[in-house]
Amino acid sequence: MAGTYHKDESNTVNRYKHQATYDVDTIHAIVNSTPVLHVSFVPDTSVPVPVVLPMIGQIGHYPSDSESHCYLHGYVSSRLMNLAASPPGIPLCVAATKVDGFVLTLTPNTHNYNYRSAILHGHGTVVSSDEEKLWAMQLVTNSVVPERYENSRVPPDNAEMQSTQILKMRIESASGKVREGVPEDERKDMKRDDVLDSVWTGVIPVYEKLGEPVGGPYNRVKEVPEHVRRFVDGENARRWTYAVEASRKPAPVKRVKKQNQVE
Amino acid sequence: MAGTYHKDESNTVNRYKHQATYDVDTIHAIVNSTPVLHVSFVPDTSVPVPVVLPMIGQIGHYPSDSESHCYLHGYVSSRLMNLAASPPGIPLCVAATKVDGFVLTLTPNTHNYNYRSAILHGHGTVVSSDEEKLWAMQLVTNSVVPERYENSRVPPDNAEMQSTQILKMRIESASGKVREGVPEDERKDMKRDDVLDSVWTGVIPVYEKLGEPVGGPYNRVKEVPEHVRRFVDGENARRWTYAVEASRKPAPVKRVKKQNQVE
Repeated sequence: MAGTYHKDESNTVNRYKHQATYDVDTIHAIVNSTPVLHVSFVPDTSVPVPVVLPMIGQIGHYPSDSESHCYLHGYVSSRLMNLAASPPGIPLCVAATKVDGFVLTLTPNTHNYNYRSAILHGHGTVVSSDEEKLWAMQLVTNSVVPERYENSRVPPDNAEMQSTQILKMRIESASGKVREGVPEDERKDMKRDDVLDSVWTGVIPVYEKLGEPVGGPYNRVKEVPEHVRRFVDGENARRWTYAVEASRKPAPVKRVKKQNQVE
Repeated sequence: MAGTYHKDESNTVNRYKHQATYDVDTIHAIVNSTPVLHVSFVPDTSVPVPVVLPMIGQIGHYPSDSESHCYLHGYVSSRLMNLAASPPGIPLCVAATKVDGFVLTLTPNTHNYNYRSAILHGHGTVVSSDEEKLWAMQLVTNSVVPERYENSRVPPDNAEMQSTQILKMRIESASGKVREGVPEDERKDMKRDDVLDSVWTGVIPVYEKLGEPVGGPYNRVKEVPEHVRRFVDGENARRWTYAVEASRKPAPVKRVKKQNQVE
């Protein structure tokens, strides 16, 4: 799984290049830890009007495939279904973004987020084999809460298999961006005592917190099960640590811009 | 600002209609409380390949306009800039999604999220007037932390005004979806004692938590200022309350489907 995505016209980051990444593991980790992916496609190929849908998704490597794909679960409308029915499928763009902190600086223009984002480009087709669909359902369910699939009523019956549609996207190119660290301001403001003496600068760490699980009205299992408890406690510790550490790291080092370099 | 968006082909929700909303206030509130919007456009109008970019945005009503627009701040690439240079601008789709909880049910297929999502469709142009640009910079900065604009070094100087680009999107149609409440399962599983006795069902509340502000390396203001403190404490209480209350509400009531109704 190691390696980097090839840089081409579709995925080269032109702005804040020092924050860009093409590292496969980094990009997959961002996508796989984001609870909602934003998936874009063009429903009517004769007009350049895009649609974005929130979907649940996960990158995984189906055993008989030669590479990883992004599996997307959600409502596949009949128009999307038709466009994705046959190879090469429908052009998709998938975006995953996590906010890790609000970076408060001296001026509005230098304000920033600590964040991790990933963008995937490729074509999506509908998974037709029952075996691969089952595998993807398990992958996606366990991406929400690990081991949840095995801890629920499985396997899905015929009606459930029929009603579930999974899009499988070939990742043809991808890029990521990561910003972490303390505030950064421009030299002109760093020289001004009046500004430095009056404006608080720092980072507000941000992370997606999991609250205490709330048993539902027909729940009969008294104790919150181990797989849920471990997930909630483990993730809260991990996420808090990441956001707080990101807020204390050195600011990203900007590469020196060559003269006449177009950004 | 009251009212509803008109339903047409572009925005009518066909799936889980009972969770759909066209209410202007609800949709604007979802967009305006989401720290990252996902903005899609088609860079080359001759091929139906979309791009999604994460941007910071806010819906607001510029005093001299007759209606609210969505203002988007972020890197406006030269290709996007050219496409958005002149009216009617470039077709955009903007998505905002907030996860409020993981809904764990008896079977993988009935698992769900509590969430709020909004989708806006319309055309975007680049804001050219300095007055409106300043107004939008204030709107967007204060959407991250209220009163932050006034509490930083303002106004922006000429170089800052030049380097800041804001997209202004006319909201031509919009829709939202809100799912809140306890788990829901199908009748076939609700009859099975073996399943009910072994599978824990409930909701893990989820909310974006703000950590203790961390002062930066050149910060000279000793106390975390009132506008930051109020924001952190107020939002944490509000968000926690929303997620926990959402996890205890009754499940959404499905409207009875008419015979032969196409979903």
